[in-house]
Amino acid sequence: MTTNTAIKLVKRPTGGPITRELFEIVELPITRPKDGEILIKQQHLSLDPAMFGWMSPDTESYIPPVALGDVMRSSGIGEVIESNHPDYAVGDRVMGMMGWQHYYLGDGQGLNKVTAPLPNEAVLSVFALPGLTATQGLFNVGKPKKGETIIVTGAAGSVGSIVGQLAKAEGLTVIGVVGSDEKAAWIVNELGFDAAINYKSANLAAQLAQHTPQGIDLFFENTGGEIQPLIFERINAHGRVIVCGLIADYAKEVPSPGPSWLNVIKKRISIQGFTMPDHFHQVPELLAKLSPYVMAGQIKHRSHVLEGLEASIEGLNLFFSGANKGKLIVKL
Amino acid sequence: MTTNTAIKLVKRPTGGPITRELFEIVELPITRPKDGEILIKQQHLSLDPAMFGWMSPDTESYIPPVALGDVMRSSGIGEVIESNHPDYAVGDRVMGMMGWQHYYLGDGQGLNKVTAPLPNEAVLSVFALPGLTATQGLFNVGKPKKGETIIVTGAAGSVGSIVGQLAKAEGLTVIGVVGSDEKAAWIVNELGFDAAINYKSANLAAQLAQHTPQGIDLFFENTGGEIQPLIFERINAHGRVIVCGLIADYAKEVPSPGPSWLNVIKKRISIQGFTMPDHFHQVPELLAKLSPYVMAGQIKHRSHVLEGLEASIEGLNLFFSGANKGKLIVKL
Repeated sequence: MTTNTAIKLVKRPTGGPITRELFEIVELPITRPKDGEILIKQQHLSLDPAMFGWMSPDTESYIPPVALGDVMRSSGIGEVIESNHPDYAVGDRVMGMMGWQHYYLGDGQGLNKVTAPLPNEAVLSVFALPGLTATQGLFNVGKPKKGETIIVTGAAGSVGSIVGQLAKAEGLTVIGVVGSDEKAAWIVNELGFDAAINYKSANLAAQLAQHTPQGIDLFFENTGGEIQPLIFERINAHGRVIVCGLIADYAKEVPSPGPSWLNVIKKRISIQGFTMPDHFHQVPELLAKLSPYVMAGQIKHRSHVLEGLEASIEGLNLFFSGANKGKLIVKL
Repeated sequence: MTTNTAIKLVKRPTGGPITRELFEIVELPITRPKDGEILIKQQHLSLDPAMFGWMSPDTESYIPPVALGDVMRSSGIGEVIESNHPDYAVGDRVMGMMGWQHYYLGDGQGLNKVTAPLPNEAVLSVFALPGLTATQGLFNVGKPKKGETIIVTGAAGSVGSIVGQLAKAEGLTVIGVVGSDEKAAWIVNELGFDAAINYKSANLAAQLAQHTPQGIDLFFENTGGEIQPLIFERINAHGRVIVCGLIADYAKEVPSPGPSWLNVIKKRISIQGFTMPDHFHQVPELLAKLSPYVMAGQIKHRSHVLEGLEASIEGLNLFFSGANKGKLIVKL
């Protein structure tokens, strides 16, 4: 332990892939904890689509952007290696927003101890942002009812895969939209989705009609893209759209338009966006809602682990290509 | 009293203006009321944008379309001229869906007696569909809070003008979008809107910025059109969009797209469509909510009265041109 390697954001993306030149890799001194502080050695960090929002200059967003020159924001999990804080002991496992760096110094604010007997990858894949987001969006925004049909885009992604499994456990018919045949097979055969549609295949409208003969009651949107208006067209009266992500638009200078609001009137549709920072105060109840499904073995996951801090940069582009297989995690 | 002149829908509109050839004007025999029936001589009928939905072939809509060959659907007000019904006496004033015809025969179902000491034009302008729609949309969907900023499109229209006055009475800052300088002057000088924007003028984005320095919390959408994305861009975090009408799109074969959902996420916006047939069971409570504002003189209106049943056909096109000044009513 000599220096703390960290990656700072120095330029904002302007569309297109994430490149090395947006960042600066630096060696920082390791500051020892003062009274009330702890030093954590981060072991795994999470890559999430929310990061595109954090890098963007839009100050109207739900969370301030990362300032240029600051260490890039991310959540992660690690071990306390020095403590001058009464609530933390050396060896404690801790989760929180520790950023793209090996060592994190803090006063405990915003950190949570991890006591679940699960490997780091499982904690970051299910109990961190993805599981909280899926639980809040599906239950509190979407208000699913047994027997309804839900369609989930980004269905093999970290959030979508949990949404679909929770909905299945609640007795809904669950259709997933994915970007490869391998992912389609995984969500149907391993996760128990009723059907999958590869959005890169042909005849999307016909596939949607085939798999949603009763129309669509709930649309959990993680991606955007050309299939969005086709899905929207099949939404039933009083349908609900939960808008969680639009990965297909994050790298575009001009985002694609949304569907006409004509059907919003005719079918009395509601479209509701949400982001987790509004709901951090609800984390205990969200975890209480989610945990029984996990304990009952109803929530499977898979992680796509990259090696080494610098892999974070190129790793973000996997969200655009969809080439990741499971929750993106960087092992430090 | 010899025959009942009526106008039947015989073709469905396919975009573009409403023309005479969609209809057939017929002379029907006047059927005398049997036991439990009443015969009404209709005096005024209401023209409403909802009629474009009723004429359309889309069976997924909230109310079945008018069948080809049926008398065109409309609401109106008239006087009982013969009664074999214990609840109705000759001379009673009655409101209901009586259609494009001079005489209406029915069993009282769907009719309401009018006891308010107001002229027919005022009843149709405030207490019928426009006032009910404004009350449901603003209060039950929009949930306005004192101090918020609301923008209303179609602000000189039958619904929009009431929405704006109700919001003003509730202590909101109210901006109206209209299609002429005359209407702009009317809603500001007569109705008390804080500002008006003529959507046919230049520099709409700059005008919106000038009149909504605190952004927009509520967007009551009656029209669609080019100003829609500019308004949407200025919606604040947790803003609500109430989608009531899209008159600019009703005559188009392909409606314009809606705004991207990127801001729906970033700003946690909700977009909710509604139509009144879902809420007809709430009419008593909606009237109870609306009446005090009317009684307090806070709801002004103006009617644009056309003469003669056949004026109904051409009258519908005034919704597209915006050339009507006030609630469109046909005097029979």
